[in-house]
Amino acid sequence: MYTVTIRDHMMIAHSLPAKAFGPAQHMHGATYVVDAEFKSEQLDENNIVIDIDIATKKLQQALAPLKYQNLDELAQFKGKLTTTEFLAHYIHQQISDEIKDSFTGSLKITLGESHVAWASYEGKVA
Amino acid sequence: MYTVTIRDHMMIAHSLPAKAFGPAQHMHGATYVVDAEFKSEQLDENNIVIDIDIATKKLQQALAPLKYQNLDELAQFKGKLTTTEFLAHYIHQQISDEIKDSFTGSLKITLGESHVAWASYEGKVA
Amino acid sequence: MYTVTIRDHMMIAHSLPAKAFGPAQHMHGATYVVDAEFKSEQLDENNIVIDIDIATKKLQQALAPLKYQNLDELAQFKGKLTTTEFLAHYIHQQISDEIKDSFTGSLKITLGESHVAWASYEGKVA
Amino acid sequence: MYTVTIRDHMMIAHSLPAKAFGPAQHMHGATYVVDAEFKSEQLDENNIVIDIDIATKKLQQALAPLKYQNLDELAQFKGKLTTTEFLAHYIHQQISDEIKDSFTGSLKITLGESHVAWASYEGKVA
Amino acid sequence: MYTVTIRDHMMIAHSLPAKAFGPAQHMHGATYVVDAEFKSEQLDENNIVIDIDIATKKLQQALAPLKYQNLDELAQFKGKLTTTEFLAHYIHQQISDEIKDSFTGSLKITLGESHVAWASYEGKVA
Amino acid sequence: MYTVTIRDHMMIAHSLPAKAFGPAQHMHGATYVVDAEFKSEQLDENNIVIDIDIATKKLQQALAPLKYQNLDELAQFKGKLTTTEFLAHYIHQQISDEIKDSFTGSLKITLGESHVAWASYEGKVA
Repeated sequence: MYTVTIRDHMMIAHSLPAKAFGPAQHMHGATYVVDAEFKSEQLDENNIVIDIDIATKKLQQALAPLKYQNLDELAQFKGKLTTTEFLAHYIHQQISDEIKDSFTGSLKITLGESHVAWASYEGKVA
Repeated sequence: MYTVTIRDHMMIAHSLPAKAFGPAQHMHGATYVVDAEFKSEQLDENNIVIDIDIATKKLQQALAPLKYQNLDELAQFKGKLTTTEFLAHYIHQQISDEIKDSFTGSLKITLGESHVAWASYEGKVA
Repeated sequence: MYTVTIRDHMMIAHSLPAKAFGPAQHMHGATYVVDAEFKSEQLDENNIVIDIDIATKKLQQALAPLKYQNLDELAQFKGKLTTTEFLAHYIHQQISDEIKDSFTGSLKITLGESHVAWASYEGKVA
Repeated sequence: MYTVTIRDHMMIAHSLPAKAFGPAQHMHGATYVVDAEFKSEQLDENNIVIDIDIATKKLQQALAPLKYQNLDELAQFKGKLTTTEFLAHYIHQQISDEIKDSFTGSLKITLGESHVAWASYEGKVA
Repeated sequence: MYTVTIRDHMMIAHSLPAKAFGPAQHMHGATYVVDAEFKSEQLDENNIVIDIDIATKKLQQALAPLKYQNLDELAQFKGKLTTTEFLAHYIHQQISDEIKDSFTGSLKITLGESHVAWASYEGKVA
Repeated sequence: MYTVTIRDHMMIAHSLPAKAFGPAQHMHGATYVVDAEFKSEQLDENNIVIDIDIATKKLQQALAPLKYQNLDELAQFKGKLTTTEFLAHYIHQQISDEIKDSFTGSLKITLGESHVAWASYEGKVA
């Protein structure tokens, strides 16, 4: 199994309005350092998993509508708890939709929220 | 697959009394930076893998009896070679015992012993 | 010159309402990984710059009123641009006020806002 | 599953002469921080996955012929695109050949090429 | 004293043709992770040391002519030993020339060449 | 001002027998990731602060007598509190003694004891 991973980040505000989240129910924010790991059983004719410029651009495009936003105000997150796990899955879906015709393999999205906590979602690109 | 990971650490002394360990047969020590990665196929109703406060507390409780200890003196390690791999498995068991009734999934414990070496154990929580 | 540094973090929301900040004028947020570096020419009778438990507690106390907050709503930041530099200085003042009677030396507060940007303030504790 | 990982690095020059690589078609270079992760279902009688000194030595031996080299000049890479993915696989093969008689398990080689990009190859040692 | 730091990187080839450099006399290469730290006694009216977008752009412009290059082929480095220290100073000069009319303070350029070695140059912007 | 920094590490046991250290009065241990930063106003004829191979060797020699040791048993630390700050100073002295005839400048020794705490000593090489 081959992988290639690239890193970007976004800075967002949100609240987590469910009792389980304690003080995080309040409007707060996070820097998410976002790693997109592309996985494939085979390399292509250029000995790569995916073109790193395309991968970088697709990750940027997935994060662009979220950067410097208050997620509570975005239509796509209406009524959703935008936990780190949820956002990892959301970004996975956004990138998968963009590359599913050209990339066969899996994608793992990891969001680092601090030096002591991170979360991820991994699934087939489809 | 979703994951959430939290980080803590412990500073311990021990010796590794088997010929294979060369100078590490002598009483020495380590800072172990400990990552506990909880893995689950599904999120719960709060869009999380596990409550991060509970996870943090369970990791703290597993490490508390080891912090600032000489492992050679602890009853539970009598006659054991407390390698990094062994300790990863031991901490896995301690946390699994605590959460097996409420968490379905896997747990990976990684112990970083320096900037150039680390070890892990991963298994089902059961 | 001796130093000792400890690390904590906070997750906050804020906006930066001045034209220079472009998209960051909008309500967004950040995880700040906060390093407090205490500097002293001499060690005390215990061969330390400062008691690490006291230092850790003072940093926690300085961050506690900010954690999981929307800085725009806090009285102490009314009408202020809460840039990373400004917050480094603010935390410096909070800790200095607490330790100035017992610690002689300098304090540097560094706030990491992502894997590619950080800011700091350093000054005498007074 | 148990793992143990060690880290080394190499500094090399190369070019990537295929249109897809844009400016990287030109002679340039990289520091690759190389992680070798050994995976095994069982620990041996010393409670380890593999002797860390042997693992360290095998990684060093695999990297030695590449360190401070221009990969374009090396016979083994004649006509090859020495991408990060390709090199991860190459190093995997070199180490596998050395340890396949004594180690049963998998090996993952990860090459970090910067703070924002890395690639890996993982496969059975055979 | 306030600081703000941003990070970028470049991947270059070069040789160090002096006996002291041993194997690094040969054509090889490096990824340099480049940190530009701007230092100032005062914040401006926006509570910042320097506009982070301008700082980011100036660093990018300084690195652009070096990225994916063989430094041995560049006119500005003819007959020079392009050590990490030398390159830190060179980048310092390039950025200083660009900002000296608008920024009063110091600039520190740090080049990380691996996880175990880095070098820097710091001086007044003038 | 130019700097060059190299990194090594050591794993030791010790106790800190003074009331201020709480649980660390007990025999425990640490991995210290040790950074040696050499500082100089000028580069030499090879455009370097110090020969990195010599620097690496001097750091290794300073750490060698401490690696895998119980510091409480070593004659040079008899009756001393071997805090992180103290050890930074001790290593500084060891290296200074070795290089003072050939290196003019300062040396900063930083010991990372975990992902959330580190200490340093800096002084002239003399």
